[in-house]
Amino acid sequence: MSEWKLKNRPVCLEKRFEFASYEDTRNFLDRLGDHSEKENKYPDISFGKTYVNITLRPEIDSPDAQMSQKDNDFAAAIDRLLQEV
Amino acid sequence: MSEWKLKNRPVCLEKRFEFASYEDTRNFLDRLGDHSEKENKYPDISFGKTYVNITLRPEIDSPDAQMSQKDNDFAAAIDRLLQEV
Repeated sequence: MSEWKLKNRPVCLEKRFEFASYEDTRNFLDRLGDHSEKENKYPDISFGKTYVNITLRPEIDSPDAQMSQKDNDFAAAIDRLLQEV
Repeated sequence: MSEWKLKNRPVCLEKRFEFASYEDTRNFLDRLGDHSEKENKYPDISFGKTYVNITLRPEIDSPDAQMSQKDNDFAAAIDRLLQEV
């Protein structure tokens, strides 16, 4: 599995997940939706039939904000959702 | 409600839908998922807590393809899903 990529200007964490079928994609999106509601954290997501791109931005909305430990924990939790698909 | 925008290079139809809550957003995405499976047509979608952007590409995958009546019908069907949210 690929790693989360840390981008700058603006700071964010990005990762692309690929799936064998739309069913797997949708299953992952459902888990991600449940997890977002539980954590009250809504990343930007783009997806097609067999991929999902997730962009996590710093929890603190400021021009010089950095990703926090909590943001990194959220990324790790998304990776764990994948193991359940 | 805004209209679908026809873009060129590459040809596609785009539209942004906005919602009052994540619950409404997710409800619409669920209907869209069901509709995609029924039609076996999977647009590129990006979304956040209260918005969904949809990009429809021509059914025929060729550099000079144009949007067909069938593609336009699919767009109109997506608009109708919105009325059910």
